[in-house]
Amino acid sequence: MWRIAVIPGDGIGPEVTTEALRTLREVAPDVEPDLLDHINADRFLASGTALSDQDFARVQRCEGALFGAVGDPRVTDPGYARDVLLRLRFDLDLYVNHRPTRLLHDRLSPLRDPARRALDCMVVRENTEGLYVGVGGAVRPGTVHETAIDTEVSTYRGVSRAMEFAFARAARSVCLVDKANAVPHNGSLWQRCFGEAAARHPEVATRHLYVDAAVMELVRDPTEFDVIVANNAHGDVLSDLTAQLAGGPGIAASANLNPRTGFALCEPLHGSAPGLTGTGSANPVAAVLSAALLLDCAGRTEEAETIRSAVRRTVADLRCTPDLGGTLTTAQAASAIRQAL
Amino acid sequence: MWRIAVIPGDGIGPEVTTEALRTLREVAPDVEPDLLDHINADRFLASGTALSDQDFARVQRCEGALFGAVGDPRVTDPGYARDVLLRLRFDLDLYVNHRPTRLLHDRLSPLRDPARRALDCMVVRENTEGLYVGVGGAVRPGTVHETAIDTEVSTYRGVSRAMEFAFARAARSVCLVDKANAVPHNGSLWQRCFGEAAARHPEVATRHLYVDAAVMELVRDPTEFDVIVANNAHGDVLSDLTAQLAGGPGIAASANLNPRTGFALCEPLHGSAPGLTGTGSANPVAAVLSAALLLDCAGRTEEAETIRSAVRRTVADLRCTPDLGGTLTTAQAASAIRQAL
Ligand SMILES: CC(C)[C@H](C(=O)O)[C@@H](O)C(=O)O
Ligand SMILES: CC(C)[C@H](C(=O)O)[C@@H](O)C(=O)O
Repeated sequence: MWRIAVIPGDGIGPEVTTEALRTLREVAPDVEPDLLDHINADRFLASGTALSDQDFARVQRCEGALFGAVGDPRVTDPGYARDVLLRLRFDLDLYVNHRPTRLLHDRLSPLRDPARRALDCMVVRENTEGLYVGVGGAVRPGTVHETAIDTEVSTYRGVSRAMEFAFARAARSVCLVDKANAVPHNGSLWQRCFGEAAARHPEVATRHLYVDAAVMELVRDPTEFDVIVANNAHGDVLSDLTAQLAGGPGIAASANLNPRTGFALCEPLHGSAPGLTGTGSANPVAAVLSAALLLDCAGRTEEAETIRSAVRRTVADLRCTPDLGGTLTTAQAASAIRQAL
Repeated sequence: MWRIAVIPGDGIGPEVTTEALRTLREVAPDVEPDLLDHINADRFLASGTALSDQDFARVQRCEGALFGAVGDPRVTDPGYARDVLLRLRFDLDLYVNHRPTRLLHDRLSPLRDPARRALDCMVVRENTEGLYVGVGGAVRPGTVHETAIDTEVSTYRGVSRAMEFAFARAARSVCLVDKANAVPHNGSLWQRCFGEAAARHPEVATRHLYVDAAVMELVRDPTEFDVIVANNAHGDVLSDLTAQLAGGPGIAASANLNPRTGFALCEPLHGSAPGLTGTGSANPVAAVLSAALLLDCAGRTEEAETIRSAVRRTVADLRCTPDLGGTLTTAQAASAIRQAL
């Protein structure tokens, strides 16, 4: 028995999570989902919190979680993401966000030069510190004298453990991306931890780029990169960029992971996409690949690969949704994947 | 007489700045350059500061500045950028960094879809606040208990004035890019100032994107964007991304501007490129277009357009350096531009 919390969330979240769970069940019949489908915008609007302490305890009793998306046009409070997703990341201490990114099919690349299309890289993002800590405030808020302050906080322990994960996963090289020339204190801690991890892993080649240069290089030639390690804020941007270079939000999955406890919360990179909700055109691939990533994180690589290979074949055959060049609906595309398992 | 400080800096900085100044002189014979070629890495290494108070006073006495690049492999202290470039931005109160970006020629776009190549947008970056303030420190630095702190600070005055510039420049629309869902206090101030500016400019369409989504959208279809307004750190990344989508660092210019005093410091987006130094292959276009931008900022649009149109013609005719598909050296490419004036 493999107990997994399932949090479909809002918008297209439930539509794609249902398909992901069905697919997961086919390859892993021992999965026992604990469905938390009340964690959503309705509840946040009604009570100011979508994820209660009881919910949190339920998630914690599982071995992993499959997450859909949170976000709703009716929710104007940007604190909603913090209430649900950021809380799970922080309180479950899911200190690594990793986003393996591979081009699924040549036609999906936005790049002109065929030699530069086939990226296969992984962004390792520190997931519990940095600018995301939520520490700050405002002086005289709402007036013309307002000063707003947010704090970027990194600790040696926090950076080192993310760094160790990055180096352990690298097949060829690790590229540190930071902005030490403008943000000195966090920058120098990151560079120190990078140097120390590099010394522990002399077999891994290293490289350093400032974040602005990294973005340029990724667009110029993403095939140059293997593992990219970055802080929470930079990792957010870099992994969305690599996802776009690999075919867009419809196919990108990410794992929020604590490598020590083994707990992983896997989620598609896309949001709740209110405009697509109910149209049947949402792409289930990112959610299905999130289920594969959940298997990976549980050490079940073979079952994960079964899903990934089915996805690759259906996408190659155009048995997919319109955003990937196909004509299928969400349900049809997902059932094509299941037939290809 | 038009007095301009010229700070060539390091690496290819002097090579391209010389050409930019020559070009500027052709169209604006009244230019009176004040050459500060001692502001460089040698001096920083020797004395710990490259820009002295006297230098600063000299720059301040000018009406604008042409900047090359600072950076040298021998300088390991990331504070070098703060000592020179960030000091000039902060102490001259150059609160807007604007980077108009237009695709110079179709062949330079990295994008596959011809309909999405011809971007023509401008990133308006707040240039004196945010994460760049340098306020922070470290607790127990150098130990395994280190905590590093940097502070992101925005003020109503600072955000509003950048916002006003963005809306005043917009031909069609302004897109606010922020990360209010993760960085709440700065995020909410930016959103308030955006709303207020939008109310003052009802003729301008508005849009909002989180920075991760903005990066994806820019790669997907940069032609959607007109003016993008963002804080210092986001603006840094977004403008390098738009530059890459428009043909790379070799052709991107930016202005650091105080719209009230009229002082502008214009610079190529590229760095000192130590690997290219002395090879004669550095592309002078970004520096030459920086000179054009300096003319623009001085209200001399016609002369600026003369330079830009010469650049466009030489690039179209492949009379340019190898990075743009030509075979010319720095000096040859620059003299081709001058012949085309
Ligand atoms: C050198 C560095 C501090 C600078 C910045 O980040 O502002 C540069 O990247 C730029 O964009 O002009
Ligand atoms: C919703 C948001 C706070 C979140 C983030 O920035 O971490 C999302 O963009 C992501 O990358 O998972």
